[in-house]
Amino acid sequence: MEKKSRVLIIGATGNLGYHLAQFSLQFCHPTFILVRDSAFTDLIKLQKINTLCHAGATAVRGSLEDEKSLVEAVKLVDVVICSIPSKQVLDQKLLIKAIKRAGCIKKFIPSEFGADPDKTQISHMDYNFYSRKSEIRRLIEAEGISYTYICCNLLMRYLLPSLIQPGLETPPRDKVTVFGDGNVKGVFMKDEDVAAFTICTIDDPRTLNKALYLRPPGNVYSMNELVEIWESKIGKKLEKIYVPEDQLLMKIKETPYPDNMILIFIYSVFIKGDHTYFDIESTGGVDGMQLYPQLKYTTISEYLETLV
Amino acid sequence: MEKKSRVLIIGATGNLGYHLAQFSLQFCHPTFILVRDSAFTDLIKLQKINTLCHAGATAVRGSLEDEKSLVEAVKLVDVVICSIPSKQVLDQKLLIKAIKRAGCIKKFIPSEFGADPDKTQISHMDYNFYSRKSEIRRLIEAEGISYTYICCNLLMRYLLPSLIQPGLETPPRDKVTVFGDGNVKGVFMKDEDVAAFTICTIDDPRTLNKALYLRPPGNVYSMNELVEIWESKIGKKLEKIYVPEDQLLMKIKETPYPDNMILIFIYSVFIKGDHTYFDIESTGGVDGMQLYPQLKYTTISEYLETLV
Repeated sequence: MEKKSRVLIIGATGNLGYHLAQFSLQFCHPTFILVRDSAFTDLIKLQKINTLCHAGATAVRGSLEDEKSLVEAVKLVDVVICSIPSKQVLDQKLLIKAIKRAGCIKKFIPSEFGADPDKTQISHMDYNFYSRKSEIRRLIEAEGISYTYICCNLLMRYLLPSLIQPGLETPPRDKVTVFGDGNVKGVFMKDEDVAAFTICTIDDPRTLNKALYLRPPGNVYSMNELVEIWESKIGKKLEKIYVPEDQLLMKIKETPYPDNMILIFIYSVFIKGDHTYFDIESTGGVDGMQLYPQLKYTTISEYLETLV
Repeated sequence: MEKKSRVLIIGATGNLGYHLAQFSLQFCHPTFILVRDSAFTDLIKLQKINTLCHAGATAVRGSLEDEKSLVEAVKLVDVVICSIPSKQVLDQKLLIKAIKRAGCIKKFIPSEFGADPDKTQISHMDYNFYSRKSEIRRLIEAEGISYTYICCNLLMRYLLPSLIQPGLETPPRDKVTVFGDGNVKGVFMKDEDVAAFTICTIDDPRTLNKALYLRPPGNVYSMNELVEIWESKIGKKLEKIYVPEDQLLMKIKETPYPDNMILIFIYSVFIKGDHTYFDIESTGGVDGMQLYPQLKYTTISEYLETLV
């Protein structure tokens, strides 16, 4: 019989975390979810918790601020997956301490689920968005905790619904802004697909102490290509307005934080090419598409189809 | 998300119980197994326990003689499945008491996994083999505990390896004894198939407070038909020796208990027709083949093929 590690999900009531818990259950892992007391007064969170428990998850009370509760929860499992929001990423420090103390964890998957923080080239301007994630990586490695880092690049629900048009909520139908020359490729993945790939790594020795990169064909496109896909779907050519690098940098400076973060991500992905400028092999990491060719995922074209 | 009840298996180190635990895990039920202290000194049992826990089961210490341990184990789950040997069937009384006390059990599947004890027609001669199972049914019903009874008829590893020839360990290749006129049909099912059907009933409201009957096409044959299948496999006709009903009854009387039980089962199945003399509909029970047509199972012909 296949090994099925026990899994603790932290952040299971969030978008990605909920899918992580669902796939953990679907892939037959004994699944535990850390639940804060405050979640019990939030009807939407409560419903998610109920649905997960109905499907076989076990809720464990605790919080990232309470080390004792963390040690108790961590002791129940073999693997910990954290999917808290990026701005709270440093709140994983107590969790790492608890994992170290519990001594039973065979793999920790920290909250990243974005671009590789050790590879992005915008550290002078991102308000430590990525350096905080790198700091957590270094802490995990220094403590000798086994890990897998999930580099899924951008989640589709961020930026793609507007076809990367800051300020819009749906893709444009007349004019479209293209940043830089529009030929730099970025990667978008759907939350549930990222969750499925993540759960696959749990008992896979090939992913031990590695970063897993997700760059599926059909999910890697430049802005010019994205516009072309959208044009073919709506059967209409759009007027392209090009915003060169220096203009984008200017706009980033003029826009106050945190509103400028969306422009900073666009700069990182579609001008600096932070998703694609390096080969996966060169990093020593592994390619999710090679490891799990059987997994189905939503392509960018399929996603844009739902917006027509 | 689909409902996945928590399941406690009692008897998980036994033949059928091990398959029950395996399928419970495979079908993504949070799975607990009751383990006696004595199991920890039995290397084979220990290996089975380890394999199940490796695959995600949680071992809970306890025994059918210790009510406190039973209540504690039962409180962890929604569904209890018992697969202890037939001779220990009355040892489920304390378990029923514990289920009643715990108050959380949505379904109890007692240890039966044979012919329907309320339908067999050999109560005057079976040393209470079936009446003990009926007694447990009545106790469950009197306590108002929800149940599913699994009527899988005979397990293949019993009687079929010898083609129903008492005293033989493999099917005959020259002469074969046929009991009665050889035209009464019996049913044989493989342990793992019975386990899969059983696990399917866990969250299926159609099976609540019902008996589930397993009579798949390809698993219901008379002795004459079984001999014919075997003859076609070995490419040879066998000499048939018919033992009429009165001779078989005489032999049962002459043979001391418990050695005569094998003859009593043959009498029940292939002379009285206890597996097939009644329609499933007439019982108010449900037909496993109609409920779970997607489940694969081993036919008698496939099983006999392995003995050629």
